[in-house]
Amino acid sequence: MQISNIVDHIHQKRSFLCVGLDSDIDRLPAEFDRSLKSLVRFNEDIIEATKEYCVAYKVNTAFYERYGSKGWKALEKTRKLLPDSHFLIADAKRGDIGNTSRQYALAFFDHLDFNAITLSPYMGRDSIQPFLEFDNKWAILLSVTSNPGSADFQRMRNSEGKELFQKVIEKSVLWAGPDKIMFVCGATQSDRLQFARKAAPNYFFLVPGVGAQGGSLEVVYKSSATRGAGLLVNSSRSIIYASSGPDFREAASAKAMELADRMGELLP
Amino acid sequence: MQISNIVDHIHQKRSFLCVGLDSDIDRLPAEFDRSLKSLVRFNEDIIEATKEYCVAYKVNTAFYERYGSKGWKALEKTRKLLPDSHFLIADAKRGDIGNTSRQYALAFFDHLDFNAITLSPYMGRDSIQPFLEFDNKWAILLSVTSNPGSADFQRMRNSEGKELFQKVIEKSVLWAGPDKIMFVCGATQSDRLQFARKAAPNYFFLVPGVGAQGGSLEVVYKSSATRGAGLLVNSSRSIIYASSGPDFREAASAKAMELADRMGELLP
Repeated sequence: MQISNIVDHIHQKRSFLCVGLDSDIDRLPAEFDRSLKSLVRFNEDIIEATKEYCVAYKVNTAFYERYGSKGWKALEKTRKLLPDSHFLIADAKRGDIGNTSRQYALAFFDHLDFNAITLSPYMGRDSIQPFLEFDNKWAILLSVTSNPGSADFQRMRNSEGKELFQKVIEKSVLWAGPDKIMFVCGATQSDRLQFARKAAPNYFFLVPGVGAQGGSLEVVYKSSATRGAGLLVNSSRSIIYASSGPDFREAASAKAMELADRMGELLP
Repeated sequence: MQISNIVDHIHQKRSFLCVGLDSDIDRLPAEFDRSLKSLVRFNEDIIEATKEYCVAYKVNTAFYERYGSKGWKALEKTRKLLPDSHFLIADAKRGDIGNTSRQYALAFFDHLDFNAITLSPYMGRDSIQPFLEFDNKWAILLSVTSNPGSADFQRMRNSEGKELFQKVIEKSVLWAGPDKIMFVCGATQSDRLQFARKAAPNYFFLVPGVGAQGGSLEVVYKSSATRGAGLLVNSSRSIIYASSGPDFREAASAKAMELADRMGELLP
């Protein structure tokens, strides 16, 4: 997949929605038993119910890894169910020294064939570099996240008045272009989104925090959209758990459609 | 395991060595084929050859994850081979928002039953908190790492002249005591090790970077040892790949013994 494919998909579908498969066995609708087999079947239903309205899927690896090798098997099965037309993100937040990061890159880009992986920038350039050596794959760096703890370190200010997340963006845009790097920017902090957009005018942002975490889609768009959109707004829990009853497919579909409709109104 | 067990083990064995199982299929000794089965057999041999000289093992999850669910199966098998007398660290460098970190904590503390996991602090307190809710388990936070990229962000200086890694330590010691938190401090930066020790006088440091990465054991000890040692110095490649010939077990044993001997001379 190339960046032009993502932009085309967004404008063709008039949606920049990413659906997050943070699928938790303990929260499956009542009709499923509490098994990994059911988790995969639930994912299949959610993908079927939402793929018309979204352009990306984000799989949260923790919810699979929690069950060890069997959970990873469910992750592999889920990956095979995801449509190749969509931008596929492993939300794994890895990041280690070079020879180790290379192994993670092989795990997610080669073995699982995701288009992108989320990474923590804490260990600096050589922890990211191995991911940049793959063509048509993206390293999505955490910059300013949507959780309360983002205030602890990401907003630490240096002597020039710049916050850490700004330094992360300013440095990493020198490492590779928008064809290899994207940034995670939380929806709950619109002023930081504006700063981030200024520092990375042509890069895609993956934006969590709309929905369950309280961020506003319209504020996100106003603060940081580019002409080509430049945004993938993620919603996980508010879609996949829209209902726990037998109508969970229709409820997920309706919620995804509602978000896509609002996105369509924002797009030029 | 409790912190007093780690200290007793160090003084009984006169070693604070941690052996890192960054086992790479492509670097197995010539007698093994390139399979995950061989990787586990190699780990078994290395554990047998080194357990007398070390007090901890650190398993680098990336080298297993690279092969997906089958790699995770090898990780589970390796975990079962590790002696419960030793402090067992999952070097996974995870860290995500609260409900996701909880899943990672279950994966490594419950499913795999490691004593500790390495974590990236970038997302702040709520990304660490779920790991602190387990008793007799440790969150080992990255502070200042041994790789060149550690200069990119970890040493960013705030307006009071404090570097990011110092803020990470100063804040996180308020979240929990030495019975729940340790820090990763790279051996290649002795001045930073001194700063770190000042900010966290009673906490254990996991110190990578001695050996293949060029840090000195004696300098590390002088810069940051406490009365109870307070250090776990890790060596991975220089032990497990000490020889690629049929004598790899003896070579690993000899290298671990040599490091343990030098540690014994440093300990009071």
